[in-house]
Amino acid sequence: MRIGLLGCGTVGQAVVRTLIGGGATIERASGHRLEVGPILVRDPTKLRPGVDPALITTDPARVLDDPSVSIVVEVMGGLDPTLGYLQTAIARGASVVTANKQLLSRYGPELLTAAQEAGAELRFEASACAAIPVIKVLRESLLAAEITAVTGIVNGTTNFILTEMSRGGLSYEEALARAQELGYAEADPSEDVGGADAAAKMAILSSIAFHSRVRIDDVPYEGIDRLQAEDLGHALALGFVVKLLGVARLMNGSASVRVYPALVPRGHRLAAIDGPDNAVLLESRATREIMLVGPGAGGDETASAVVADILSILGTHQGSFLHNALADAGRAIAPPGSVSSAFYLRMAVADRPGVLARIASAFADEELSIRTVVQSGSGDEARLVLILHNGPEERMEQALARMRALDDVRGDPVMLRVLGSGEGGVRR
Amino acid sequence: MRIGLLGCGTVGQAVVRTLIGGGATIERASGHRLEVGPILVRDPTKLRPGVDPALITTDPARVLDDPSVSIVVEVMGGLDPTLGYLQTAIARGASVVTANKQLLSRYGPELLTAAQEAGAELRFEASACAAIPVIKVLRESLLAAEITAVTGIVNGTTNFILTEMSRGGLSYEEALARAQELGYAEADPSEDVGGADAAAKMAILSSIAFHSRVRIDDVPYEGIDRLQAEDLGHALALGFVVKLLGVARLMNGSASVRVYPALVPRGHRLAAIDGPDNAVLLESRATREIMLVGPGAGGDETASAVVADILSILGTHQGSFLHNALADAGRAIAPPGSVSSAFYLRMAVADRPGVLARIASAFADEELSIRTVVQSGSGDEARLVLILHNGPEERMEQALARMRALDDVRGDPVMLRVLGSGEGGVRR
Repeated sequence: MRIGLLGCGTVGQAVVRTLIGGGATIERASGHRLEVGPILVRDPTKLRPGVDPALITTDPARVLDDPSVSIVVEVMGGLDPTLGYLQTAIARGASVVTANKQLLSRYGPELLTAAQEAGAELRFEASACAAIPVIKVLRESLLAAEITAVTGIVNGTTNFILTEMSRGGLSYEEALARAQELGYAEADPSEDVGGADAAAKMAILSSIAFHSRVRIDDVPYEGIDRLQAEDLGHALALGFVVKLLGVARLMNGSASVRVYPALVPRGHRLAAIDGPDNAVLLESRATREIMLVGPGAGGDETASAVVADILSILGTHQGSFLHNALADAGRAIAPPGSVSSAFYLRMAVADRPGVLARIASAFADEELSIRTVVQSGSGDEARLVLILHNGPEERMEQALARMRALDDVRGDPVMLRVLGSGEGGVRR
Repeated sequence: MRIGLLGCGTVGQAVVRTLIGGGATIERASGHRLEVGPILVRDPTKLRPGVDPALITTDPARVLDDPSVSIVVEVMGGLDPTLGYLQTAIARGASVVTANKQLLSRYGPELLTAAQEAGAELRFEASACAAIPVIKVLRESLLAAEITAVTGIVNGTTNFILTEMSRGGLSYEEALARAQELGYAEADPSEDVGGADAAAKMAILSSIAFHSRVRIDDVPYEGIDRLQAEDLGHALALGFVVKLLGVARLMNGSASVRVYPALVPRGHRLAAIDGPDNAVLLESRATREIMLVGPGAGGDETASAVVADILSILGTHQGSFLHNALADAGRAIAPPGSVSSAFYLRMAVADRPGVLARIASAFADEELSIRTVVQSGSGDEARLVLILHNGPEERMEQALARMRALDDVRGDPVMLRVLGSGEGGVRR
């Protein structure tokens, strides 16, 4: 199975790395051995770490016309000559994976029709929210669910700027400068802050959600570039946060799709989506609300969606796809004691001098360190609530045994784990 | 394409309704016309609205041995005779869709191996978090992403109880009674509150995430039945909420999977998941965090996942699957003016008697009703911030024109939309 690439920038290079690095996993799960290349580039002399120079070409025909290339990955962007390239590949029956939202929000319906006629696949997960698999979920999981509404924070640049303005009290200009500094906004941010990027994504998402043809020209959009900081403050005082929303609704059988900055009630799920993250809320009669959240941009994230599309295409070529995943017995089960965690502990202790010192030194002996202690007295008994920093479970078991042995401790201590950095579950 | 059912309770009946009601959509998208039945039941005299009695049978062989049944849907539950039924169906090459988490968390690896050998599909989206498509996302979208951690609120009953205890100040017993009253907990809630249900789900999810064989016996679990209300209060005071978590981690190549009540920092994504909802946080090197949120139980929700699995199986039978969705031009685009929304409005107005009355009557003339007004003076000019209840956009445009014409209003009013009930996006 040969994968040709059109373009080899940040995303393209990450795709090549993932396909080569993950080759064994992909082969085990799909039964297909993938080969990568040829790769069309404009400037063959540019440095592309990890990409074999022998695969590089400047001749589009080597990717488009080679019958051994069964999947063409388009990560070059732009409308022209990209549209023509994809039409050429599809016409000879090659499947296409693309991350090009501008192209799809204009010519998606035609490309899909062409793919269907040629018996080829067209996949475009990366075109909407990078690694968040919203297109697959809409296209496959919720196909029969009758989606009635799609509400999304689908542009990470603007969400980062609004979060900084709202939480950090920055002005729009300061927040934009900070976004540019951190790589969340481009030197020319107009596509993002003006709303066009979100409109293209909403055209794609609503087309699939509503089984319809919505193009970017059907999506009225406003950005955040004319939003005034003062209004964020008024909104906050009234119990709202301001988000740039894509709002798609099915109304009496018609599709209404728009992008605008909106006040979102603070208790609403979307109000909690901060920083550069994206989130899409899908509503249907059958499933009520399903929300998908994650990073909506980034080279590795976009590449992950491209690779997922490649795997989906492999899956439709082979019925018994992906059985190996669950049937693989490759991993051991880690013994529970070896796991690390942070801990919460509550104990009733005698209210006399030196108690805390004795308890603290018992923890120190087990190399467990205390983050917080709250002591509250009640007669001759005090109540001690502790949060301990991350440490191995077996140490904590030892420490608990020491506690139980102490004269000062009454009854059995209550222990709960704390989701924290050692658990790998902390929000970035 | 014939779909046979084992069992026809709440979920089974919802599956039949969806397959029949959504038949046209499914046929258009997949190219397959589905036929439903036979349906195995224990008691054929029971009332099953919408289910043709001619399809009902008490003879398992009619579903299992009929070569015209290509997909067997198992929604009868239990381990015995269910396991044997599924093995029989798979052995003759039928694909199987099951919602049975107890069965899968014990015999999943064997069933998958059998399916692979028979060239059949085994799908089980409904076994983990009902309509939340976490298994499809793990199995397909993130197959090559090297998942390192799965952290989940995978039991809605316990999450509802904890939310009620924490927010409503109820005792465990009161919260459980309320959950039972609302249908979120069974008469015998021990599977849920004791943690076994979550452990089965985590065994299934971590098996797929880590390409491994994790069985329920490998998952140490604690429930919330011995949790004390006092600790929820201490946790809250220290900046945490308590959740029943499934915590799966890849540690030096070994899988560690556990279920326990844990303190979750209030700023963490999972802390915001309230009521009967489920949420699963997936972490990998390639994609950072992706979170999926939604209802983790319910007849229609579980049926939606079963139907999604059926569609996935159809998809692997036919390469050009699902093209029609985006290529379908069936829907009109609604004109923006016809959409309803709630509105935020900020205006500078002259600070003189009667201003607010004149503005309010202008809105009343357009049948727009005011929810909140905040007025703040600054010299001879006042600042007016209003939130208006839901109304048609064209009325709002008219009202804005009236505002601009008023002598009292200075400069151009600032208008933003409010995500609210009329938008269909309000959290339940």
